Amino acid sequence: MKQEIGFVQREVLKEKPDFSSLGFGKYFTDYMFVMDYQQEIGWFDPRITPYEPLTLEPSAMVFHYGQAIFEGMKAYKAADGTIQLFRPEKNMKRLNESCERLCIPQIDEDFLLEAIKQLILTEKDWVPDGEGTSLYIRPFIFSTEPYLGVRPAKQYKLLVILSPSGAYYGDQLSPVRIYVEEQYVRAVIGGVGHVKTAGNYAASLKAQEKADENGFAQILWLDAKENKYVEEVGSMNIFFKINGEVVTPRLNGSILPGVTRDSVIELLKYWNIPVREERISIEEVFAAHARGELEEVFGAGTAAVISPVGELTWNEHAIAINDYKIGELSQRIYDEMTGIQLGKKEDPFNWTVKVEQVEV
Amino acid sequence: MKQEIGFVQREVLKEKPDFSSLGFGKYFTDYMFVMDYQQEIGWFDPRITPYEPLTLEPSAMVFHYGQAIFEGMKAYKAADGTIQLFRPEKNMKRLNESCERLCIPQIDEDFLLEAIKQLILTEKDWVPDGEGTSLYIRPFIFSTEPYLGVRPAKQYKLLVILSPSGAYYGDQLSPVRIYVEEQYVRAVIGGVGHVKTAGNYAASLKAQEKADENGFAQILWLDAKENKYVEEVGSMNIFFKINGEVVTPRLNGSILPGVTRDSVIELLKYWNIPVREERISIEEVFAAHARGELEEVFGAGTAAVISPVGELTWNEHAIAINDYKIGELSQRIYDEMTGIQLGKKEDPFNWTVKVEQVEV
Ligand SMILES: Cc1ncc(COP(=O)(O)O)c(C=O)c1O
Ligand SMILES: Cc1ncc(COP(=O)(O)O)c(C=O)c1O
Repeated sequence: MKQEIGFVQREVLKEKPDFSSLGFGKYFTDYMFVMDYQQEIGWFDPRITPYEPLTLEPSAMVFHYGQAIFEGMKAYKAADGTIQLFRPEKNMKRLNESCERLCIPQIDEDFLLEAIKQLILTEKDWVPDGEGTSLYIRPFIFSTEPYLGVRPAKQYKLLVILSPSGAYYGDQLSPVRIYVEEQYVRAVIGGVGHVKTAGNYAASLKAQEKADENGFAQILWLDAKENKYVEEVGSMNIFFKINGEVVTPRLNGSILPGVTRDSVIELLKYWNIPVREERISIEEVFAAHARGELEEVFGAGTAAVISPVGELTWNEHAIAINDYKIGELSQRIYDEMTGIQLGKKEDPFNWTVKVEQVEV
Repeated sequence: MKQEIGFVQREVLKEKPDFSSLGFGKYFTDYMFVMDYQQEIGWFDPRITPYEPLTLEPSAMVFHYGQAIFEGMKAYKAADGTIQLFRPEKNMKRLNESCERLCIPQIDEDFLLEAIKQLILTEKDWVPDGEGTSLYIRPFIFSTEPYLGVRPAKQYKLLVILSPSGAYYGDQLSPVRIYVEEQYVRAVIGGVGHVKTAGNYAASLKAQEKADENGFAQILWLDAKENKYVEEVGSMNIFFKINGEVVTPRLNGSILPGVTRDSVIELLKYWNIPVREERISIEEVFAAHARGELEEVFGAGTAAVISPVGELTWNEHAIAINDYKIGELSQRIYDEMTGIQLGKKEDPFNWTVKVEQVEV
């Protein structure tokens, strides 16, 4: 199903924002990629068109029954001036896994990746090159059929939009205070927590609001069945370094399988640092701290790459981690990953993919 | 905060569909109610405008993080030619409860109800009067702010759209086959199952697809923690008549508090029929059947009012309920409720609300 990608020229290009103060997800480039789906036709009319508002019926099913999934990835300006992606095929695969769970028709992963590359090439002047900056890539799919019955829609739209984004941290990583949430949950086995669907994020806002009010940066989510086992931190996967070994919750069906998580595990194995994926209770984490063995805690995700945790609070009980300083391993992983992403370090895993002129 | 409701006239009215074959949620009237929200202003510019497509940024937060809630209610053409609503203040209250959980700004319940009445009066020719027909009312709110950071949006849209709808059943109630789902779950305590948010429905589609493939009409959902206790049936609340007593799962934080559910309970109390809200396991239900005590099972919701269950299948084990016939009590409740809704029976509870010219 190789399809021609159409192109609609924009009359006037936007003025670019100041690349030194981009923030996240605020500015969008001149073009976007769009493709439509109708049950009788399949995915059709792939095209790069001006970034502009969408027109939707008030009865479009997405507003009512929330069939909406997305991905998040980044394009980096490499040291040699080329543009590169980080394991983008993993995002394409996860997108289809999200489709599957949400009863959304599958996409051709190779084709979408080529379309994304083509879009990025069109927008190559929008890829920032300042320290920590990147072009954030947001593919998403949602139901558009105008109908109020509860069933999978027969019409969808897939879009890819691009947003030049600033550094997540300022000059350096800064450890944050985290709050262990026991009232609200993010996801449960049998639900949709293992895929990237819009509703997961809506459901998480209330707990984040509570964390904010109490002066915490993020939430540590526990499992929904027993309120006992650690799942994720905010919108990141979580890692604990305990007595020289690294532990991260195993993928159990309610945790999102992060691309960064997978990369951290690979990297640790490559370095011969012991790493285990297993169920870990919050009690164990606090016990490890009491024994003086909790050496580092960090979140891992595309946005921040590595996000060190400086403090954990559980039921009024706060523990400081590594004296609120960035752990040595956290820093090493961060440096290695960003080094690879920016083409400054060797890439023994073949994780990076160059964005170059291609035939689709 | 009494606000004037603006009015934008439509140039050409739509041709009305054939009221004898309306189906559900397919046709929409000439006008809709719209109101916008911005953090600095609050809810503003309430207006009745032509039903027409919406224009939204591709980065509108609803597509990505799913802050979307809704209500479902009906307007009936009463026996005396007037139009009436059924306990609409309960829907307004639940809408605000949904807002609260999803970090969406509260609405003025009285004001919205008046606006809905005004919209219905504008569209009074769209209220069908055939047996079992009604004007379905869909208020909904979603985030519109163009931003990709995960946090509550600062801009929203509230709409009310109207859809003339046909009878849920043909000539009479018909018992359906139901499948007890053990793999997928609808909701969990600490999540959002007790409110009407879009993501709940998206998450439920996969199990419904499975039910369809196996020839079942609906899913019986179990609790997510233990996969043991009965929660809901499809998008309805569920009732069991066991040995002369009626039981329905108590509101535990993962079940939607249905308006119909509440009305059924009130009605049973009024009739001095024993009714209990309590945790009930699927094992108990099957045990009651084995003892010959499971007399009736029915779903309750705005769409169908009462939906008799003729068969329950759990783990390959199928049981027939009341010999696949409509239960006497199910029929009695259905007749009473629809009688009240249509103004054919007395309304000792003051449940119905007339839609008449009012000053807003
Ligand atoms: C809930 C959640 N967990 C974890 C992650 C980390 O995944 P990734 O490393 O692929 O960005 C994300 C972000 O994508 C997320 O939204
Ligand atoms: C999940 C769910 N449960 C129960 C109900 C029944 O609620 P009500 O009687 O208010 O229509 C509905 C429909 O609104 C629903 O969506």
